[in-house]
Amino acid sequence: MSAQVVKVGICGLGTVGGGTFNVLARNAAEIAARAGAAIEVVHVGARRDNPACDTGSTRVSRDIFAVIDDPEVQILVELIGGTTVAKEVVEKALAAGKHVVTANKALIAEFGNELFAQAEQCGVTIRYEAAVAGGIPIIKALREGLAGNRIEWLAGIINGTGNFILSEMRDKGREFDDVLAEAQALGYAEADPTFDVEGIDAAHKLVILASLAFGMPLQFSAVYTEGITELTPQDVEYAEELGYRIKHLGIAKQTGGGIELRVHPTLIPEKRLLANVNGVKNAVLVEGDAVGPTLYYGAGAGAEPTASAVVADIVDLARELSAGQQCRVPALGFASEKLRDVRIVPMTEVVTPWYLRMVAEDRPGVLSRIATIFSDQGISIEALIQKAPAEGEDRVPLIVLTNRAVQGSMDQAVAAIEALDSISGEVARIRVEPLDG
Amino acid sequence: MSAQVVKVGICGLGTVGGGTFNVLARNAAEIAARAGAAIEVVHVGARRDNPACDTGSTRVSRDIFAVIDDPEVQILVELIGGTTVAKEVVEKALAAGKHVVTANKALIAEFGNELFAQAEQCGVTIRYEAAVAGGIPIIKALREGLAGNRIEWLAGIINGTGNFILSEMRDKGREFDDVLAEAQALGYAEADPTFDVEGIDAAHKLVILASLAFGMPLQFSAVYTEGITELTPQDVEYAEELGYRIKHLGIAKQTGGGIELRVHPTLIPEKRLLANVNGVKNAVLVEGDAVGPTLYYGAGAGAEPTASAVVADIVDLARELSAGQQCRVPALGFASEKLRDVRIVPMTEVVTPWYLRMVAEDRPGVLSRIATIFSDQGISIEALIQKAPAEGEDRVPLIVLTNRAVQGSMDQAVAAIEALDSISGEVARIRVEPLDG
Ligand SMILES: NC(=O)c1ccc[n+]([C@@H]2O[C@H](COP(=O)([O-])OP(=O)(O)OC[C@H]3O[C@@H](n4cnc5c(N)ncnc54)[C@H](OP(=O)(O)O)[C@@H]3O)[C@@H](O)[C@H]2O)c1
Ligand SMILES: NC(=O)c1ccc[n+]([C@@H]2O[C@H](COP(=O)([O-])OP(=O)(O)OC[C@H]3O[C@@H](n4cnc5c(N)ncnc54)[C@H](OP(=O)(O)O)[C@@H]3O)[C@@H](O)[C@H]2O)c1
Repeated sequence: MSAQVVKVGICGLGTVGGGTFNVLARNAAEIAARAGAAIEVVHVGARRDNPACDTGSTRVSRDIFAVIDDPEVQILVELIGGTTVAKEVVEKALAAGKHVVTANKALIAEFGNELFAQAEQCGVTIRYEAAVAGGIPIIKALREGLAGNRIEWLAGIINGTGNFILSEMRDKGREFDDVLAEAQALGYAEADPTFDVEGIDAAHKLVILASLAFGMPLQFSAVYTEGITELTPQDVEYAEELGYRIKHLGIAKQTGGGIELRVHPTLIPEKRLLANVNGVKNAVLVEGDAVGPTLYYGAGAGAEPTASAVVADIVDLARELSAGQQCRVPALGFASEKLRDVRIVPMTEVVTPWYLRMVAEDRPGVLSRIATIFSDQGISIEALIQKAPAEGEDRVPLIVLTNRAVQGSMDQAVAAIEALDSISGEVARIRVEPLDG
Repeated sequence: MSAQVVKVGICGLGTVGGGTFNVLARNAAEIAARAGAAIEVVHVGARRDNPACDTGSTRVSRDIFAVIDDPEVQILVELIGGTTVAKEVVEKALAAGKHVVTANKALIAEFGNELFAQAEQCGVTIRYEAAVAGGIPIIKALREGLAGNRIEWLAGIINGTGNFILSEMRDKGREFDDVLAEAQALGYAEADPTFDVEGIDAAHKLVILASLAFGMPLQFSAVYTEGITELTPQDVEYAEELGYRIKHLGIAKQTGGGIELRVHPTLIPEKRLLANVNGVKNAVLVEGDAVGPTLYYGAGAGAEPTASAVVADIVDLARELSAGQQCRVPALGFASEKLRDVRIVPMTEVVTPWYLRMVAEDRPGVLSRIATIFSDQGISIEALIQKAPAEGEDRVPLIVLTNRAVQGSMDQAVAAIEALDSISGEVARIRVEPLDG
């Protein structure tokens, strides 16, 4: 192990892999000055030709596992994606005594617990800053920068595609499907956008943030996940009239009953910075008991923003490796033996204010019956908007904003309202988060 | 050196010292789980009684230097402030082989170069996360989280008192002096508010951020500093009409001619997140070549927010110390021998758009003469607002927004305009920053 050079192997040379290769090359001098060692990409595993690697000094293997077998490689960067080959790559690298850097949120969220345990056993480190919120150093902030705090809650816009869609729906009053098609054409959304718009990608990231914040093992299967596919331009507009914006948030909160872990569309007050994070950008708001609210904003995806985080991890490792030291920051910020299994709060117990939209007959007595139903459930109404009926219509949209109510009571209230003759169809409902501590 | 306990001494038990003591006590279990070691405050130096320290397990000395002489103390936390006693404390602690954590921006900005050199010589580490933007982990972000980037520029609201004053002037149309008096009554501003409102405190912080961003020695004396005392409610209002907000920014920018280092009131587009950071909050926007813009927001001052950063530094050190390792991250993020002296761009060479306010006679020809003066200097006008004359007045306020112009040319244009008979008094001018890369 030389003090002057730290040797890196990269498996997978797609968007992020290519970006990482470029950033390491372009900023080599500055990075070396920071890391205390030159970072050299000695071996790349890619099943396709890539002219960027023809530098003469980088070995290129079609078989990505050859990178792991390379005795020179000290840090293995996994940028393949998915949880099959990527998992095998990481496991083999750890077993071979390599440190691992990855941008793979699915892998960490679903298999992080076992991979971290393996790394600890092998005496090596896994770093994954790029897995959440792209180039924003949010993992480092939680794991190190806020280490003095008991984290109370965090809420993040952690899927750029979803935020782009919501921003466009709001700015231009467009329909969800319409904007999604454009996002796909622009290359923001995958051909299969399910992971983005159904909230699975956000759930992967949320579970990582929550484990870092609260010191608990990763529990991907425990996240409640609701997508944005059902949102209408009307909801966006009515929210606006009430002084709110709709964002697709990942929320993790410490409560008396345990930890809430949820991804869903959320009304947030328009004055909050988070409400003003638009387009493909990401941001995470973290509330610590000592520091209060802090917010981290930036590009959540893209070749070089994501590479920025990958390289930061490499520099972190290189700073230690070049001196023959070990990285002493635990994978989830807490010593592994201190991670505690915490109860995840079932959604029926979660308490938030609510936004409801329904279609009611425009005749006397309807409002009073609805008010009685809420009151029977102990739910108080904060605001109520009855829109004018459309030309020739005798039914009107009715928008209700409630105070804080437990979801169990709201479920019953909604069932009772939907059973009223004077209400047509289903009641649409979206949670509200004041985000004020 | 025990692996289970890391022993801390605190000198100065005022606002931040008291906060640090409390946070370490309240979150002891969580912090120990994160640090891999219990953090124990074994010795406090305070020249006054403080009941908080009567825990039985903490020695208290009236003579702060006794804390340094305590052989048990591994990390010395300096929270006295100022550059006299505090400097002596830090120097003696380093010489005694203690690691140092401080929140003292004045000390770091003015004497950081020599103190970092001494620390390196003594084989110990100085950490100062709390010195800039309170609880926001911005130092860590620049030094580690963005280590893969060439930083292009950064701009920050890094003085909470100043931002509180500007927010109040805008929200309520109040005068500067009036709000300052309230800030003092509320305890936001010191009895002597010069450091805050004249931009000296911001300059201290800016110079630290700039050195971390660009890898250069600290150059406090090179910062251009302009306060907010001359701003009027009219400027705030006119800026608003043009779609801007006025913020007191610290700006550091890498240009062809060197590094710009400046603190001054600035018009920024109202849509930017930074424009929406209000009250005593701080935020720093950083533009990296790989990551693009990232922003960090939170409490810039206060007992516990600042303590949050102090404790994060202690945890960083403890993670290494508990394993008998050294902190490998250089004080300014770059290996000290790689720090390069860079030319600081003189203000006459700085290029920005400008906002100008003047009082002109309301008669034909005035506008055209002003337009000619700008055109002679190669400055183009972006917007011009002539306000209606007040009742019985024959002079009108004239507001000009220019495109990018070098300050040298603007100086000449302003001199020529002030020489016109039809202009009364001085031309007020404020720089504009689009903050768009
Ligand atoms: N893109 C982003 O903005 C972003 C942001 C944050 C995190 N991430 C994460 O970063 C990782 C990489 O994402 P990406 O966007 O860079 O994906 P990508 O562009 O699809 O790149 C993946 C690369 O891995 C290669 N690969 C896949 N299976 C392979 C195999 N069995 N053998 C050899 N090579 C294989 C692919 O080769 P072929 O080209 O031959 O298929 C491709 O070059 C993922 O975990 C993703 O979640 C991405
Ligand atoms: N307050 C904030 O929000 C904040 C935020 C960021 C950074 N900081 C920095 O943190 C540092 C401390 O600020 P602070 O607000 O905590 O100040 P503070 O409340 O005035 O506390 C300073 C403490 O140091 C003590 N002290 C001063 N000189 C001493 C001496 N010669 N011997 C013994 N004790 C002495 C004072 O004792 P007495 O009480 O007896 O005078 C006081 O307890 C400063 O460098 C400041 O710039 C503060």
